[in-house]
Amino acid sequence: MKSSIKLSMSRRIRRTPFTNKVEECGVSDFTVVNHMLLPKGFKNSIEEDYWHLSQHVQIWDVSCQRQVQISGPDAKKLVQLMTPRSLKNMETGKCFYIPIIDENAGMINDPVLLKLDDDMFWISIADSDILLWAKGLALGSNLNVNIIEPDVYPLAVQGPKSEALMTIVFGEEIKKIKFFNFRIFDFLGTKQVIARSGYSKQDGFEIYFKGFENHFERTKLAEQLWDTIWKAGQKYNILPGCPNLIDRIEAGLMSYGNDFTIENNPLECNLDKYCNENESHNFVGKDALRKIHAKGIKQKIRGIIFDGDPCAPTGKPLPIYSENNEKIGQIASGIYSPRIKKNIGLSMILKDYWEIGQKVLVESLDGKKRKGIITALPFQK
Amino acid sequence: MKSSIKLSMSRRIRRTPFTNKVEECGVSDFTVVNHMLLPKGFKNSIEEDYWHLSQHVQIWDVSCQRQVQISGPDAKKLVQLMTPRSLKNMETGKCFYIPIIDENAGMINDPVLLKLDDDMFWISIADSDILLWAKGLALGSNLNVNIIEPDVYPLAVQGPKSEALMTIVFGEEIKKIKFFNFRIFDFLGTKQVIARSGYSKQDGFEIYFKGFENHFERTKLAEQLWDTIWKAGQKYNILPGCPNLIDRIEAGLMSYGNDFTIENNPLECNLDKYCNENESHNFVGKDALRKIHAKGIKQKIRGIIFDGDPCAPTGKPLPIYSENNEKIGQIASGIYSPRIKKNIGLSMILKDYWEIGQKVLVESLDGKKRKGIITALPFQK
Repeated sequence: MKSSIKLSMSRRIRRTPFTNKVEECGVSDFTVVNHMLLPKGFKNSIEEDYWHLSQHVQIWDVSCQRQVQISGPDAKKLVQLMTPRSLKNMETGKCFYIPIIDENAGMINDPVLLKLDDDMFWISIADSDILLWAKGLALGSNLNVNIIEPDVYPLAVQGPKSEALMTIVFGEEIKKIKFFNFRIFDFLGTKQVIARSGYSKQDGFEIYFKGFENHFERTKLAEQLWDTIWKAGQKYNILPGCPNLIDRIEAGLMSYGNDFTIENNPLECNLDKYCNENESHNFVGKDALRKIHAKGIKQKIRGIIFDGDPCAPTGKPLPIYSENNEKIGQIASGIYSPRIKKNIGLSMILKDYWEIGQKVLVESLDGKKRKGIITALPFQK
Repeated sequence: MKSSIKLSMSRRIRRTPFTNKVEECGVSDFTVVNHMLLPKGFKNSIEEDYWHLSQHVQIWDVSCQRQVQISGPDAKKLVQLMTPRSLKNMETGKCFYIPIIDENAGMINDPVLLKLDDDMFWISIADSDILLWAKGLALGSNLNVNIIEPDVYPLAVQGPKSEALMTIVFGEEIKKIKFFNFRIFDFLGTKQVIARSGYSKQDGFEIYFKGFENHFERTKLAEQLWDTIWKAGQKYNILPGCPNLIDRIEAGLMSYGNDFTIENNPLECNLDKYCNENESHNFVGKDALRKIHAKGIKQKIRGIIFDGDPCAPTGKPLPIYSENNEKIGQIASGIYSPRIKKNIGLSMILKDYWEIGQKVLVESLDGKKRKGIITALPFQK
């Protein structure tokens, strides 16, 4: 089911402070996000991993969620300039999911923004160099900010038993963190930002691990953190894991570069509620977004459930056709759901066909056209 | 010798119009550059591939060298703003190797710039999203430009027999292209930019393949181009290939993200002659670069030749120590050269140790310290 092509390693494809641990755990597949390794599989199949994630707890090296740290007198102004979502009421300690768009309202990232202070933000990015975008904008606009990629390496603890596990390591205070909020916790004398969040539909936490400047000391502390969680997790049946394709598709969690690209606007991605272009704040792409809103969109991301043999992820999109054989979309993220007992996928679907219940045809890699139906997101059991 | 970790495929790690062909040829390893697949190995070992490349001709899918197309009334102004190299005398038809630096004079790319017309440039980039940097700068500075990633997919033909092969396909005119120049050629009724260039020390060409907007038509034309070159190459012993680590290290060709990063300035990368900060043109990082020039640099890229068993690429840098055990550098790109019959590598080396002939120690993965010596670049036989 998995690709047999090997990944050629180099310094350019950066290791993380947790990569040694991930290798010790028998990682079998990596992908590359933000010029950094992201584990994509261990000993279990994606399906075994899916069941485990929904019942127990897992530790994920998601260091590739790089932070763009924006600080200084104009930090707030720059961050607001970068997203159509209004940040007016954002408080310190909050995480905001924000679309980032270019001057044409094309999506260039969909990160989580953390407000650390009135003049200090982290943007926890998907796969594009938002550091360069932010620096270019700031420089051209003459804003007084400091923009860096800090030595921060997110480590996720995901699954229904994550709260119990995290309580052992960090204390009862962990339970007080609400979804998409963060607090500061101590670990061996260091301060660590921990958010209740993660790229799954399970309960979970993301530790924005910040170690020492020195590479060896940082790796040592990172491995102590990994080992501490690992040890505490034994009674909860902990396993090493990674974002699970079945879980995230069922949840309707999108992946930048897979389900949408710079060719798509946020309305096509169902991000209408984060597009506050009628408020007074200024942001890149405001005019373009207004025009698109007025004109209406031509396609939109939907769920598709389709028949046939279990569909394995291949890296090749599966074309979707109307019953009249018009091409109306393509599934970039598709897989067999053992819970729904059908294949499921995410796709941009042309307007005439995006109604829930619409019948469609999905062409699998063997050329067969399988019967499918448009559904709402997230997928319902 | 090679990593056994698999690469997980997805639409985000983009296929190219040549990926089908590369797979047919038995690609064994990929890496990811600019969110796109770059083949890194076929059936032969790196060493067999090295000998073949230096004697015959190879076809390389280097589509990952994405183009950032900058056009419009302020195109020239923006492109000059992006590099310390003076573009005053750059003529249409020329390729310029240019450092791109940020406001701190940190390297953010080292692409090849192609001047297609007075108001139309392509920047053929290494691994960072210069599209976002250029767009951010232009937007902030209110420049009148259009910036896109065009549907251009470079295909390289490299090796001493490349001219003979290319002459069969494109005619005698090919011979007139001088190194780092390009001309326009016809292929099945389409216009193609062909430059005499490539990421090897052999003679070679890069076809900046531009197909049709339609994905299927584009792939068809791309495969026709591949097949035409393949067929013409039979008499020259053509093989599929990719940038060869031995060849490029011997040549002293640097790799962004491996041999230098945003932490390094262009003077540390031996790019002094492209740093024309005493000329009148304005560019990002000019003040920072002047200060660095005045103060002097602390480290510089050098070649290292070192003893011991043949060193295989691992993705983990090898630390370099002085004879007094001070850490003075690290080899990110290192390999055994069958021509020099020693291990060779590239590394930033601290000032006190960068003199040619300096003795150093290189720690290999087994923890052994091997005797090494600092050399000039490119490596001499």
